[in-house]
Amino acid sequence: LNRIKASGLKLRFCTNETQATRENFVKKLQGLGFDISVDEVTAPAPAACRILKERSLRPHLLVHDDLVPEFAEIDKANPNCVVIGDAAENFTYANLNKAFQVLIGMEKPVLISLGRGRYYKETDGLKLDVGAYMKALEYACDVQAEVVGKPAKTFFESALAEMGVTPQEAIMIGDDIVNDVGGAQQCGMRAVQVRTGKYRPCDENHPYVKPDAYVNNLAEAVDIILQQL
Amino acid sequence: LNRIKASGLKLRFCTNETQATRENFVKKLQGLGFDISVDEVTAPAPAACRILKERSLRPHLLVHDDLVPEFAEIDKANPNCVVIGDAAENFTYANLNKAFQVLIGMEKPVLISLGRGRYYKETDGLKLDVGAYMKALEYACDVQAEVVGKPAKTFFESALAEMGVTPQEAIMIGDDIVNDVGGAQQCGMRAVQVRTGKYRPCDENHPYVKPDAYVNNLAEAVDIILQQL
Repeated sequence: LNRIKASGLKLRFCTNETQATRENFVKKLQGLGFDISVDEVTAPAPAACRILKERSLRPHLLVHDDLVPEFAEIDKANPNCVVIGDAAENFTYANLNKAFQVLIGMEKPVLISLGRGRYYKETDGLKLDVGAYMKALEYACDVQAEVVGKPAKTFFESALAEMGVTPQEAIMIGDDIVNDVGGAQQCGMRAVQVRTGKYRPCDENHPYVKPDAYVNNLAEAVDIILQQL
Repeated sequence: LNRIKASGLKLRFCTNETQATRENFVKKLQGLGFDISVDEVTAPAPAACRILKERSLRPHLLVHDDLVPEFAEIDKANPNCVVIGDAAENFTYANLNKAFQVLIGMEKPVLISLGRGRYYKETDGLKLDVGAYMKALEYACDVQAEVVGKPAKTFFESALAEMGVTPQEAIMIGDDIVNDVGGAQQCGMRAVQVRTGKYRPCDENHPYVKPDAYVNNLAEAVDIILQQL
């Protein structure tokens, strides 16, 4: 990161993190030694807030407690949509029924989902991600959720707009073959997969996503990018 | 019911009830004055038990506490499939993750669902039904559930086999346009919709299910059937 910043290239961090505010997300990375600030982060919750404001939507929130501050400035009285994130322990039977009741009570239900992940790994095992609960509500209400976050095209477009560059001028580096690489390519960007984190060898035979390049780690990606300046 | 039984016609009660054993289901109806016994009831849990035995499947159960006795004779050690019913309060975050972990740990996940209902009404409001949670697990594990219960063809076929009659000799009477009427017709039976219970006037314009007849209540259905003997 330091070498990219020193080169003068513009940089955004695109995350699907919805269990914490950007402030806490950034603090965690700073604690790990990364040079990163809140205004360099593109995340689903602020993207959802922009949509809510543009369309005068008042959300019923089914999200993680730690994400709620991101919606501080949003009017939540008399809700006319549901926003669902990775609510983790907040995915209770009562909370799911409540979100469902709000949706089914609308003439035309509006469901906004902060991601479409299937599952993720924690120290105590695999956990169902927001996408699974989104599917449950979609089925019960016969609606299609609007997904904010990677791999949505609008999410990458926001990041590009924030940097003021075109897709052709940008490159995505990520470990997730579908959400990072596929999403960025759909948006017209080139994308590199790092062979760390979520990467699995079978990703290299993915049926429909083909990265523009592979690198063994982030440092190697930076080497290649800087060589081409 | 008394008139049908007196006529000598064979009779089965086909229910998607999965919040109680057949014993308790029958007790409730007997309490309401109906002449009904356990061996006249076709229900999803016993149908699932037949499948489990036939295919040597050992289930991890995500069902209502009151349904567990239906699986008393089934080996549940070292599970190689998941059976999901309307678990109600048992649909906790922990229980959903546990069922998911069992499924995703299988080479070829097997998910058996006791119905595919979207939601139902209780005195304190609408509740998500088993179908919504089935969809969540289907999406997370990229599998398709095998649905036992109405409107599955195999479920109606079981009821017919238990009576020893062909579909052409049988008639279904029900209030649910898709699960009762549509399911029975798919199986080759004729089906009558009663204008009570779940019936809604808009059912009469259903896009793809057309009952063979409508009746205002069960007694009227019996009148018509007995007149034609």
